[in-house]
Amino acid sequence: MSMNNLGIVKRNIVRADKAAVDKLSRFGVATIHEAMGRVGLMKPYMRPIYAGAHMAGTAVTVLLHPGDNWMMHVVAEQLQPGDVVVAAITADNCDGFFGDLLATSFMARGARALIIDAGARDVAELTKMGFPVWSKGISAKGTIKATLGSVNIPVVCAGAQVNPGDVVVADDDGVVVVPAAVAQQAADAAEAREANEGEKRAKLAAGVLGLDMYKMREPLEKAGLKYID
Amino acid sequence: MSMNNLGIVKRNIVRADKAAVDKLSRFGVATIHEAMGRVGLMKPYMRPIYAGAHMAGTAVTVLLHPGDNWMMHVVAEQLQPGDVVVAAITADNCDGFFGDLLATSFMARGARALIIDAGARDVAELTKMGFPVWSKGISAKGTIKATLGSVNIPVVCAGAQVNPGDVVVADDDGVVVVPAAVAQQAADAAEAREANEGEKRAKLAAGVLGLDMYKMREPLEKAGLKYID
Amino acid sequence: MSMNNLGIVKRNIVRADKAAVDKLSRFGVATIHEAMGRVGLMKPYMRPIYAGAHMAGTAVTVLLHPGDNWMMHVVAEQLQPGDVVVAAITADNCDGFFGDLLATSFMARGARALIIDAGARDVAELTKMGFPVWSKGISAKGTIKATLGSVNIPVVCAGAQVNPGDVVVADDDGVVVVPAAVAQQAADAAEAREANEGEKRAKLAAGVLGLDMYKMREPLEKAGLKYID
Amino acid sequence: MSMNNLGIVKRNIVRADKAAVDKLSRFGVATIHEAMGRVGLMKPYMRPIYAGAHMAGTAVTVLLHPGDNWMMHVVAEQLQPGDVVVAAITADNCDGFFGDLLATSFMARGARALIIDAGARDVAELTKMGFPVWSKGISAKGTIKATLGSVNIPVVCAGAQVNPGDVVVADDDGVVVVPAAVAQQAADAAEAREANEGEKRAKLAAGVLGLDMYKMREPLEKAGLKYID
Amino acid sequence: MSMNNLGIVKRNIVRADKAAVDKLSRFGVATIHEAMGRVGLMKPYMRPIYAGAHMAGTAVTVLLHPGDNWMMHVVAEQLQPGDVVVAAITADNCDGFFGDLLATSFMARGARALIIDAGARDVAELTKMGFPVWSKGISAKGTIKATLGSVNIPVVCAGAQVNPGDVVVADDDGVVVVPAAVAQQAADAAEAREANEGEKRAKLAAGVLGLDMYKMREPLEKAGLKYID
Amino acid sequence: MSMNNLGIVKRNIVRADKAAVDKLSRFGVATIHEAMGRVGLMKPYMRPIYAGAHMAGTAVTVLLHPGDNWMMHVVAEQLQPGDVVVAAITADNCDGFFGDLLATSFMARGARALIIDAGARDVAELTKMGFPVWSKGISAKGTIKATLGSVNIPVVCAGAQVNPGDVVVADDDGVVVVPAAVAQQAADAAEAREANEGEKRAKLAAGVLGLDMYKMREPLEKAGLKYID
Repeated sequence: MSMNNLGIVKRNIVRADKAAVDKLSRFGVATIHEAMGRVGLMKPYMRPIYAGAHMAGTAVTVLLHPGDNWMMHVVAEQLQPGDVVVAAITADNCDGFFGDLLATSFMARGARALIIDAGARDVAELTKMGFPVWSKGISAKGTIKATLGSVNIPVVCAGAQVNPGDVVVADDDGVVVVPAAVAQQAADAAEAREANEGEKRAKLAAGVLGLDMYKMREPLEKAGLKYID
Repeated sequence: MSMNNLGIVKRNIVRADKAAVDKLSRFGVATIHEAMGRVGLMKPYMRPIYAGAHMAGTAVTVLLHPGDNWMMHVVAEQLQPGDVVVAAITADNCDGFFGDLLATSFMARGARALIIDAGARDVAELTKMGFPVWSKGISAKGTIKATLGSVNIPVVCAGAQVNPGDVVVADDDGVVVVPAAVAQQAADAAEAREANEGEKRAKLAAGVLGLDMYKMREPLEKAGLKYID
Repeated sequence: MSMNNLGIVKRNIVRADKAAVDKLSRFGVATIHEAMGRVGLMKPYMRPIYAGAHMAGTAVTVLLHPGDNWMMHVVAEQLQPGDVVVAAITADNCDGFFGDLLATSFMARGARALIIDAGARDVAELTKMGFPVWSKGISAKGTIKATLGSVNIPVVCAGAQVNPGDVVVADDDGVVVVPAAVAQQAADAAEAREANEGEKRAKLAAGVLGLDMYKMREPLEKAGLKYID
Repeated sequence: MSMNNLGIVKRNIVRADKAAVDKLSRFGVATIHEAMGRVGLMKPYMRPIYAGAHMAGTAVTVLLHPGDNWMMHVVAEQLQPGDVVVAAITADNCDGFFGDLLATSFMARGARALIIDAGARDVAELTKMGFPVWSKGISAKGTIKATLGSVNIPVVCAGAQVNPGDVVVADDDGVVVVPAAVAQQAADAAEAREANEGEKRAKLAAGVLGLDMYKMREPLEKAGLKYID
Repeated sequence: MSMNNLGIVKRNIVRADKAAVDKLSRFGVATIHEAMGRVGLMKPYMRPIYAGAHMAGTAVTVLLHPGDNWMMHVVAEQLQPGDVVVAAITADNCDGFFGDLLATSFMARGARALIIDAGARDVAELTKMGFPVWSKGISAKGTIKATLGSVNIPVVCAGAQVNPGDVVVADDDGVVVVPAAVAQQAADAAEAREANEGEKRAKLAAGVLGLDMYKMREPLEKAGLKYID
Repeated sequence: MSMNNLGIVKRNIVRADKAAVDKLSRFGVATIHEAMGRVGLMKPYMRPIYAGAHMAGTAVTVLLHPGDNWMMHVVAEQLQPGDVVVAAITADNCDGFFGDLLATSFMARGARALIIDAGARDVAELTKMGFPVWSKGISAKGTIKATLGSVNIPVVCAGAQVNPGDVVVADDDGVVVVPAAVAQQAADAAEAREANEGEKRAKLAAGVLGLDMYKMREPLEKAGLKYID
């Protein structure tokens, strides 16, 4: 067993079930995160480069070194339609690892988005191309191509564990990771929750209070809540 | 006198005069802040979830604990048309305390916005609904309902003191608090300043320099300013 | 020789060649930064107040003190059509040094933008006026007019050295500084790079991998990259 | 009623009872904060300039503008033995508002410490003098003396409301504010808690688990905790 | 398969070999990190609460919710001599989850340290007790005991994946995680590197340049390095 | 003229006058910064790795790329007794570029300190060796040796312009840069200020108020300061 996985490209990965990914793509990040029991979120500093993007895909992971995007070209070859690239960095760094050329290549391979715990650039072009990126920041700073990283090993990206083949869903609220093994289960739970939410929304819009709808008055009183005038 | 105000809901608060709020709603945050003598601003990390929102309302305050949004349902019942909810947290935390369901409830009660020193979520839906939120961040992270906070006690939100009934004005520049007792006076001062600004704007657009319009040349020379070639 | 340059306004500066500035205005910040050998970028915290702005101009510099925008009126008089104001601050500060009145004055003088290592305000108005600002933040906090700074001295703005007359290019990716003496050379290099990029983009869009286009397979293998299944 | 309190020095303030301050000085910040019901803490970015300082005093407040420490000399005159200066700033700023000369003056007046939501300097000298400062940062950056602030008005410092005469306690864990009206009550509650803690500490040191001492096993099981092997 | 692991306590974990842990304890974090191929480091914001601490132990992990330290008492029961508690939080939060009472309990069970991606308090007492903590910050803010987390599940702490039983080494440079399966191999590699370093250190101290010792002159020249006068 | 200075080592630089450096070494950073007219400070995030260090030396500059410390070995050869290495990075990065081996080499060449706008490691050893480092952070993260930077070109380090040969003074308050051409003048001004401060300190210690010593009462009254009871 080696002490690290640097310099390795795993070609065959088991991607989450396509039907489950498609179903998950109908729900927002907050709904899925709740449906899973409030786990799997990346840190809130991960923001989309443009508003309104919403995406679900299967993770192809890449581990990069700060200031070095060599492996981005290696990961391109491993992409299949419906994939999303999840890029982790071995240290804090916000250089612009990704721009419109790489996006062109990723789109040609069928990739849906990039999730990167670092910076991106060519933001105006990426917006025009409709290739969404969720990143820690935006920076025009270029990178070199000198050090080996790895492709399709488990990575920690923005505080979340991502295994190759996991489902990644991202929207204006952030990024959530759904392990491949529970993708269908999470999609079903999200669907149930969403249905449930529609009903609640209608009641609340009609003026019913959450206090009554959720039957909170008694537990609040028990906890000691006091009303004064 | 109790040492803390946790677990209290004050039902009757004195809201700032409606006419003063309406008048204040015609002016931007920067203008009001200047008109008041440069006080009352929240920290600049408070940002709107979408561009172009502009709102004035009367504060209904809520004090929450990190990761716990139970009191959000308690505060809903205290809302009247024209109110804005101001949510302070007892510790630094950026979880998503607020989403589209609570927004539906708040809107049904006539609330105009939420100002929260923490995170919000369901940003895409909130944008579609036109319910503006000014927050410290955006996060899909869910919260629990386990601990009592309070409603309509004085709070410190993003560095600013807010008393229930105060006027809160928010736009793309940030959030300013106008104590209820000086709302009319602040609105008048903002109006005077705005009128004054229109005239200045016309002069500056015509090419008159601020140096001359504000008669700065002499004080600058006195302060020692030197022109060289 | 004085120990500092505070209180000085230099009237005559040598601006970069207009043709070079015009040519540079055709290229993005990332392209120019790469064409120059990856130097000249400001820190990535410098962000445009609205998306889609793209600007190239000749730098008129101003050094300000925290919370004091007096020199903004002094710098206005030194502006010529095609200039961009580059404002450095002597300490970390994010107050709103600049709003719509100053923007009106700057536009009347023909200025194209403001780059400021501090805050701006009146963001909604500036967006309507189409006057772009790249700044460290947005804040309604007002400033005083009490302390001398200087105009058209060399400054360090957001980590980059800027001399009066240098070319500054800014877009959604950030801000890059091109020394006046190499403006034409940088423009030519950016043009060459851009042409080159068009060809690459076409190949990548057609599905050619960067691995093959850049002939990376051999050096990657030499560096020890291993493919596993 | 004026819209702001700038330019005012309140000479007569009601200081918290000396016996209560003395008693509070025997307890740590965490203990007092807990005894008060978990309120009154300043933000955790407030750090002592040297380890091991522990101080309780009555607050004399000062509101300053960014980069301007003029009012520090005004506040000095209002100090009495046992006071602590609490300095708030009207905007985010980390300049060095305070150094060894002001500390000499404050010490000569009997002040015990400075709490400042900005920067301090002359840290090596202050350490030798044994004059503790809790601040947002350390910076050698000097300040001007040009703008009026106020002395002994209510301020918000590092997120906490401080009224003149309140007790402020600070140690390696941070800074807590105790309203004058509840100082004795808070001191008694802290004493009770501390006594209680001594007993708990002995039990835990002897190997008793918190699970048993606090009778947590049943509520944990009820909440659904499961042990697996 | 459940979608999350909340509410689970795993009692039997396989700890890394004691001899390997002991050997690893002889080396610094930087040396071990290099020996492993530059992987396994936690983010650099993790800092010791006092200088000079150096510790190696076997990880017992705990996953907590923001503002809730209930599971700290659950984890205490699972500790064995030589363990170190690694605490991850499900969201960004810097409250004071840990103080001298819990430290007394952990020490009584033989634990060597706490690594927590949040805040700690009672820092003065912990320093006197000699119980080291590496944390994201220091805060007196208390926590509640209301929500279930888990013990001895894999966690992501400060950006690093930690499995129960892994070796954690921490010193003034930060925190590194060594997977249990490679502990002996890492210890051997660190030993080899350290021996090697002693020799290098002697040469460098005698004035030999790294340029010559590492034979860098030729590759630097090849890369294009130019010396000018 | 080349567009960038990467890959250049300048061997002959003009160092500031030794007598001026020695004289400057007697004064603190705050005093020198004030004596120069409040310019030349690095950003306040630059902190010493241990308390109590105080150093003055002549700058030998190095420009590095993120995650790459190759040029650290190149700069070692250019060091002379009394020098201080000032390391700038072309992008934000906090890896550990420097440890005890490089420190051994730098000390053998007579260097007095390292100032680096990035991270350092082996902090415990550096403290024992008495080799002070002022840095943006501490990180065990290792670096590669793959990309050319430059030595002895003008750099911007932590927001301050540094030319080779300039004097750099650093202590617990931060880091200040004194241009070589004004070193003697700055030292004299610092001496005058210090003498002046001794007298002031004695008066303040005797209870004289700054209000009287600096004759501030009249200007404060003119500015509108009001005393109330």
